[in-house]
Amino acid sequence: MVSQAVHDFSGIFAPRLGGRLITAAGALAHYAPKEAYHDTQPPEMVVQPTSIEEVQDIVRHAARLGITLVGWGAGTSLEGNAAATRGGIAVDFSLMNKITEVSGEDLLCVVEPGVTREQLNADLRDSGLFFPVDPGANATLGGMISTRASGTTTVRYGSMRDNVLALKVVLPDGRLIKTGTRARKSAAGYDLTHLFTGSEGTLGLIVEATLRLHPRPEATLAAIWDFSSEQGAIDTVAMAIQCGITPARMEFLDRSAVDACNRMSALGLPDRPMLFLEFHGSSAEVDAQLAMVEGIGRDLGGGNLQYAKTEEDRNRLWRARHQALPAARALRVGSVAWVTDICVPISKLGGAMAHARGLIDAAGLVAPMLGHVGDGNFHVFFILDPKAPDEWSRASAVNKAMIEYAIAAGGTSTGEHGIGLGKRQALLDEHGSDAVALMRTIKQAIDPMNIMNPGKIFMDGEE
Amino acid sequence: MVSQAVHDFSGIFAPRLGGRLITAAGALAHYAPKEAYHDTQPPEMVVQPTSIEEVQDIVRHAARLGITLVGWGAGTSLEGNAAATRGGIAVDFSLMNKITEVSGEDLLCVVEPGVTREQLNADLRDSGLFFPVDPGANATLGGMISTRASGTTTVRYGSMRDNVLALKVVLPDGRLIKTGTRARKSAAGYDLTHLFTGSEGTLGLIVEATLRLHPRPEATLAAIWDFSSEQGAIDTVAMAIQCGITPARMEFLDRSAVDACNRMSALGLPDRPMLFLEFHGSSAEVDAQLAMVEGIGRDLGGGNLQYAKTEEDRNRLWRARHQALPAARALRVGSVAWVTDICVPISKLGGAMAHARGLIDAAGLVAPMLGHVGDGNFHVFFILDPKAPDEWSRASAVNKAMIEYAIAAGGTSTGEHGIGLGKRQALLDEHGSDAVALMRTIKQAIDPMNIMNPGKIFMDGEE
Repeated sequence: MVSQAVHDFSGIFAPRLGGRLITAAGALAHYAPKEAYHDTQPPEMVVQPTSIEEVQDIVRHAARLGITLVGWGAGTSLEGNAAATRGGIAVDFSLMNKITEVSGEDLLCVVEPGVTREQLNADLRDSGLFFPVDPGANATLGGMISTRASGTTTVRYGSMRDNVLALKVVLPDGRLIKTGTRARKSAAGYDLTHLFTGSEGTLGLIVEATLRLHPRPEATLAAIWDFSSEQGAIDTVAMAIQCGITPARMEFLDRSAVDACNRMSALGLPDRPMLFLEFHGSSAEVDAQLAMVEGIGRDLGGGNLQYAKTEEDRNRLWRARHQALPAARALRVGSVAWVTDICVPISKLGGAMAHARGLIDAAGLVAPMLGHVGDGNFHVFFILDPKAPDEWSRASAVNKAMIEYAIAAGGTSTGEHGIGLGKRQALLDEHGSDAVALMRTIKQAIDPMNIMNPGKIFMDGEE
Repeated sequence: MVSQAVHDFSGIFAPRLGGRLITAAGALAHYAPKEAYHDTQPPEMVVQPTSIEEVQDIVRHAARLGITLVGWGAGTSLEGNAAATRGGIAVDFSLMNKITEVSGEDLLCVVEPGVTREQLNADLRDSGLFFPVDPGANATLGGMISTRASGTTTVRYGSMRDNVLALKVVLPDGRLIKTGTRARKSAAGYDLTHLFTGSEGTLGLIVEATLRLHPRPEATLAAIWDFSSEQGAIDTVAMAIQCGITPARMEFLDRSAVDACNRMSALGLPDRPMLFLEFHGSSAEVDAQLAMVEGIGRDLGGGNLQYAKTEEDRNRLWRARHQALPAARALRVGSVAWVTDICVPISKLGGAMAHARGLIDAAGLVAPMLGHVGDGNFHVFFILDPKAPDEWSRASAVNKAMIEYAIAAGGTSTGEHGIGLGKRQALLDEHGSDAVALMRTIKQAIDPMNIMNPGKIFMDGEE
C-alpha cells in the first residue's frame, strides 16, 4: 500500500533511478530490521542513490511531498533504529560504498556512508593502518556513526564519538553541509560532528565521513583466562583500568556464555567465567601489560592464562568470543536473541552484572552475559522462544530493572546500540524531561516537518 | 552607565547577594578580558553566585528583564570570548570553586565551574591521578569547557572534547539540565555534552562538570632537542605521529622563540629551532619511545638531545617552553602579544609554518612561533607596539593569510582558542554559510532572546 505522496515521488524518480528504485514487496521485506525485538515493517519504497547530489534531490522532493525518510546501512542495528515505522522511503546507501581517500600521512580516510567496517579494513590491509571500532556486526560506517557505535576495541581506541573527524550531511531541506575538518582538533563553533554522531538519522542523512585511522601495532598479544568467579574476573578488569593499563580489547564471557560456546564447538574451555584480552604495542609493551594484568588477577581467582602472538593462534584462542552470539542462539532451536546494552562506571560493573544475573535466574530465563567490560558495558543475550510471550515479558522486566540499576549507578541505558524505538522511555529516565525537551527543541529546529526517521529517540505521540 | 533593566535586576539581587553584586567601576574593569587584540569593555554589573540555584534565579530574572549574560572564569581567553560587548551582567564563577568529588575507582571528578586546572591538580596530588588538559594559562575548568580548550598534552590525552563526561547547564530560561553520565561511553540520544563543550557560553551557563581523570604515569621522561632546520624538526614530529608514537607532549619553538628565551634567562640554548618532548608510561616504555623518536630525528638534522627523568631536571630542561610567552613579550618593552591559533593536518604542518614565517618576515614583524606540533597546532606570537596601528594591520593581514592557508589545507582557523569575536568571519570561511546557518538555528532554538553571550561565534548584525 503506497501513499499518494510516495506514488508521486515514484513518478519523478522511477525514470531517473531505474532499478535503484525498489517497490517489489519481496525486495522491500529485506528492509525490515532483523535481530530486533520490535515489530517491524518494510518501507513503502527503497531508493539507492549513488551520489551526494542524488541524495539532495531525493531529500528535496521528499520534503516537498512530506515523505518520511529513513537511512539504511547494513540493517544490523538492535533497537529498531532503522525501522520504517511510519512508512515512507528507506534511503539505502549500499551503492555509495567507495573509499574515496586513505591518507597514511594524516592517519585518516574519507568514505561514503555505505562502506562497511570490514570492507574498510580489507582495503587498508597493506597500508599499515586500521580502523579500530568493532561492534561485532559488519555494519556500515554511516550506520555506526548514526548510532555512535563502539565495541571490543573502544577501551583503547574509543568509539565512533572519538574516531569521526568530519562529516558531510544532507539536511532535511536538501542543503549539504560539512562539519569538522581534517585537523586533529578544532575549537571552531558548535561541534556539529558530535551532534550528528549518534543522532540516528533524525537530523539528516550522512553522505560522507572523514575517519581517524590508527597505525597497526608492532605487536599484538591475545590471551584468554578463566576465573573461579565472575566477581574475580570483573575486579581484575576494574583494577587494570584503574591502574592505567590500556588493553586493546578486554572482554568477559560468563559461565553460561562459555558453556554455550563449548556446546557448539567442543572448544573444551573450562566451565568457568573467562576474560578475553588483547594488547597492542611494541613487543616489550604487550608483554609488560599482560604481566601487569596477570599480577592483578592471580590473587582474584585467575586460573590458566593462555596467550598467543601469531594471528592464527590469536584467532584460535578468541574463537569462543567471536561465536558467542550464534552459540547462545544455538542453545535453543528456533530461538530469537534479544540483546541488552547497559553501561556503568567501572566501579559499579560487578554489582550491575551480579544484579542482572540474579534477575535472570529468578525469571528462569536462558541468558548468557558478556561484555566490553573495560568500558563498563555488558550485554545480556536473552535467548527466547518467539512463540512464548510470557518469556518476552519476563525478559522485558529484567531489561527494565537493569536499566534502572544502570541509571541509579550513574550509567546509561545504552552503551552502544542507541535509543531507536526500544529505549525512548529510558532516555527520559536517564536524562530527565528537560534535557530530552532540549533534544526535541534541536530536532524541531533542524527538521521542522519531522521527515527524518520520525518516532525514533523521542516518543512523539503518534503511536 | 547602567541600563534600566540592570538597575531593576540590582533592586532584586543587591539585598540577596550583598558584596557578591559588583557595580564599582574599578572592580568592573577587571572583567574586561586581558591579552586580547579586541576592544573590550567591562560589563554593567558582575554577580558572583555560590550555588546552582542562585545561577538559575539570576538567569530567570535576566531573561525576564532581557539582560545579556556572559559567563566569567579566569579571563584568560584570547579571542574576546568573554567580553561584555553588549553590556549586561558577567556571571563570575570564582566562588563556585569546589571540587565536589574525586573518584579513583571511576577515574573521574566532579567540579564546580570556577575550579582552575592548577587547583584541581594540586588537590589531586596525593591521589595518583591527574587532569591532563593544559592550555598554559591557569584557566577555570568551566572556561576551558566553554572554549573546547586543549594544549600541550592533547597529543596523548585529548582536549576538553575528550575529557568531559557530563555537564550540568542552566539554560537561557533558567531550567537546569544534565548531559552525559558517569559511564565511559553512551549512545543515548543527542550528544548534548559535546554541543555545550565549545559553545562559548552562547547556549547556557555550565554550572557543574564531570571530568575524566588519568592515572599518573609510572615514569615521565622529558627531553629537549635542537635541530639544524625547522623543517627537520617538524618532519620528525610528523613521522613520529605517523608511526603511532604517543608522546605526552611534543612542542616546538622556532629559532626566534629560542632566542627570546635565551635573552630573558641566559639559558644558553643553541640558536636553533627546538623540540620539547615528554613521554609517559612505564620506565621501559618511555625509554623505548624516546629511542624511536631519536631514531627518526637523527637523519633529519637533530643535534644534541638532552633528557631528564626527575621532576626537578625535567622542569629545568623545559624552562624555555614554560616562559616562552613572557620571553617573547620581553623582546620589546611595552609590547602587547597577539597569539594566532591555526591547526592543520600533520602532513601540512611544515608547509603552514614555513608559509607563516615567510609572511611574518615579509611584513617585518617580531613574531616568535611555537606549537603543539603533535596535533598540527601552532601559535604565532605577534609582539606589537600598542601605539603602532600599522603593525597591527600587518599582523592582521598575516593572521588572515594563515587562516586561509589552514582552511585550504583542510585545517581549522582555531585549534584551541575558539571563535569569540575574532574569528567569526573565519568560521564562515571554514564551515560555509549553510553549516554556520545550522549553528545559528540551534542558537536561536535554545536561546531565542539571545541573552547568552550575544555577538560571539556569530556576527548578528548588531555591530
